[in-house]
Amino acid sequence: MIQCMDVEAITNRLKRIEGQVRGLIKMVETDKSCEEILIQIGSVKSALHKTGQVILEGHLHHCVLDGVRDGKGEETLQKLSAAIEQFSRIG
Amino acid sequence: MIQCMDVEAITNRLKRIEGQVRGLIKMVETDKSCEEILIQIGSVKSALHKTGQVILEGHLHHCVLDGVRDGKGEETLQKLSAAIEQFSRIG
Amino acid sequence: MIQCMDVEAITNRLKRIEGQVRGLIKMVETDKSCEEILIQIGSVKSALHKTGQVILEGHLHHCVLDGVRDGKGEETLQKLSAAIEQFSRIG
Amino acid sequence: MIQCMDVEAITNRLKRIEGQVRGLIKMVETDKSCEEILIQIGSVKSALHKTGQVILEGHLHHCVLDGVRDGKGEETLQKLSAAIEQFSRIG
Repeated sequence: MIQCMDVEAITNRLKRIEGQVRGLIKMVETDKSCEEILIQIGSVKSALHKTGQVILEGHLHHCVLDGVRDGKGEETLQKLSAAIEQFSRIG
Repeated sequence: MIQCMDVEAITNRLKRIEGQVRGLIKMVETDKSCEEILIQIGSVKSALHKTGQVILEGHLHHCVLDGVRDGKGEETLQKLSAAIEQFSRIG
Repeated sequence: MIQCMDVEAITNRLKRIEGQVRGLIKMVETDKSCEEILIQIGSVKSALHKTGQVILEGHLHHCVLDGVRDGKGEETLQKLSAAIEQFSRIG
Repeated sequence: MIQCMDVEAITNRLKRIEGQVRGLIKMVETDKSCEEILIQIGSVKSALHKTGQVILEGHLHHCVLDGVRDGKGEETLQKLSAAIEQFSRIG
């Protein structure tokens, strides 16, 4: 598969998120207040969501465009549709 | 501060999430499809959200109840309100 | 029950939202583009979410505070917890 | 523009949502509890989100596919990307 994302940029985002999750564990272990922890959980969710949007944008402009041009439009859009449904839901 | 959460249970949840984020980095590095990565990002967001809800529930039943009973109701609920606002938003 | 919300302010917010939903129906009937309709659906979701946050804030500072002071803390916070869980989820 | 959604089905969904919003106004005016109102707001948000997903799915399989096939791929996907970003955010 031709990669449709900037692997280095996405990996860096995810490494920062991994660091944020480790920070959350430290907050819990050192008795930080629930409010601070909840606010930080909100930040990590937002960072993940933003990362997903960057991946989605690259996917639309590369893989999806190529897939439709290569005559695999139905399949490409079916898979995209399922992925967006999972990605955009919460709870 | 008297801890109002089950530190071990919350830490275990967060360690699983940390593992999921590392799994995401591996997926990106090994050229997994964007759709699979997006679906997995959705799962991690849900796991974080669920962890926040567990923390919030403990917080309401312990810290908030105690705070109000100790005459610090206004302050306790002001901080809770701000935390919920940050926690429940996305984007 | 002593009302813990500003009925007029909340009603006005909801009437604006009702108008937005009617606007959405008109957009669909007059063949506006899917993108415009999706963006507008996002706006209405945000307006509903914001309305919920205003209600929640009033609820915390009035009903919840009073409930705990009246010795009905457990019950009040149990119901609050269930309501926040439903309110903050999507999908 | 060739319509890529089932106008009647989407209109019916939106009319039900309009009815739910009117129901919310009635709940506020008749002093229903904050918890019941918050839960109902969560339901309306979910119904709107689901409606958006149905529109998005139709859009992907019709307008987007046709747009790319007609050589307007870049423009089509740029607009889609912006719409998803607005649609999937909250708060």
